[in-house]
Amino acid sequence: MNAIAKISPDNFATYQEILASTPIFDGCKNEVISEFVSNSSIQSFSKGEIVYNYSDKANWFYLVLSGYVKLYRETMDGQEAVIDIFGANKIFAESAMFENFIYQENCEAVEKTDLLRLPLGLLSRKIEDVQILAANLLNHNIATKKQKNKEIEHRDVQTASQRIGCFLLDLCSQNKTNSTSIELPYDKILIAAKLGMQPETFSRALAKLKSVTSIQVNGSLVEIPDISELSEFCCSACSSSFPCKS
Amino acid sequence: MNAIAKISPDNFATYQEILASTPIFDGCKNEVISEFVSNSSIQSFSKGEIVYNYSDKANWFYLVLSGYVKLYRETMDGQEAVIDIFGANKIFAESAMFENFIYQENCEAVEKTDLLRLPLGLLSRKIEDVQILAANLLNHNIATKKQKNKEIEHRDVQTASQRIGCFLLDLCSQNKTNSTSIELPYDKILIAAKLGMQPETFSRALAKLKSVTSIQVNGSLVEIPDISELSEFCCSACSSSFPCKS
Repeated sequence: MNAIAKISPDNFATYQEILASTPIFDGCKNEVISEFVSNSSIQSFSKGEIVYNYSDKANWFYLVLSGYVKLYRETMDGQEAVIDIFGANKIFAESAMFENFIYQENCEAVEKTDLLRLPLGLLSRKIEDVQILAANLLNHNIATKKQKNKEIEHRDVQTASQRIGCFLLDLCSQNKTNSTSIELPYDKILIAAKLGMQPETFSRALAKLKSVTSIQVNGSLVEIPDISELSEFCCSACSSSFPCKS
Repeated sequence: MNAIAKISPDNFATYQEILASTPIFDGCKNEVISEFVSNSSIQSFSKGEIVYNYSDKANWFYLVLSGYVKLYRETMDGQEAVIDIFGANKIFAESAMFENFIYQENCEAVEKTDLLRLPLGLLSRKIEDVQILAANLLNHNIATKKQKNKEIEHRDVQTASQRIGCFLLDLCSQNKTNSTSIELPYDKILIAAKLGMQPETFSRALAKLKSVTSIQVNGSLVEIPDISELSEFCCSACSSSFPCKS
């Protein structure tokens, strides 16, 4: 069972800062942010615990403090389609306020995860009179739409190996040097699901990627001796080039 | 070369009505809509003509009056990824105002097409003080994001035949009876591209769909004697069921 904790006065300022640094609350006045923090709590989930289910009444939206959550839908014949995976500092489930306050997908913690739980009704009321909040939400959704277009493009024109390479490049895009080693953020089965592949397809495609580039994979550690080589291999089948703006 | 025509005073009210009936201008005051119509013109394109190119300066957004446009991006190795296809009454390219007024894709008329060309700068200024316009844009983008999630889900869990069936079901979803005949809105190569398939994959998957359901295809005419049968075949691998809300 997940645990819910109030925010102590000692930590209030920390959560104000975390919230203020998200794109959705960017530029909002302190009193607006404080109102959200005052009405929030911290919810801790263990691996595999459900945060909410599809068609549940949506009273809350969330910010990831640590860990990862998986948003997914189930098809009638029982397959699982992963919509998104969110890690630290990402806000999610806020769109439910435009869906009659009904969650549109299932949400599950994929490892030990702490979430900041914020009242969705407050957000809905605030966007009516805090203009910057409405503008931020619009920007956020436009950026998401762009990202989704990119994901569709990749499924259509990239090979499975190129899509895995692209996922790896996203993880090292902040890096300035041409060689790097990165830690996979979550397990390979989940990465496969995020990329819309069966685990077997993912294994074969990863083996292919290792054979045509110099990357090496050891458990969750990936050595990329030559980022340019990897980006050349992946980005040839993409309309953007490395490093991606998105 | 495409032709540009001013809107005559006789037709002014018609275009006001068309604009007022779009989700983005829903509920906007007459004077706001009139200001847009006053600054619009009608642009006619023949099949294959370019409306704008990726990275062009974006001065305009568009409403389709008749015909179809294809929005697409090109990968570095020359493949084409179709992002969207828009027909009558759809507004597009408005998101460019959040991209420093630079178009983010190519746009081409896929048949003889008339567009209403509207000033993007005016839209950008208006959403700052016409709150309903900002709210409509937000709703529009949330709906688009939802649609994109569905497209990603379909690419991940549906077979090619099921995706073609789903495309057909979308065309007959307004119908109340269980049997119908529909006209394909544009040619099969473009439908294949919209669904992210190679033309050969599309042909094989359509043949499979005809063999496992009772649909019949004659050129661009599709006979669907039993919509329930088709929806059962397609929707089993989807988290929604027919008729889709989106």
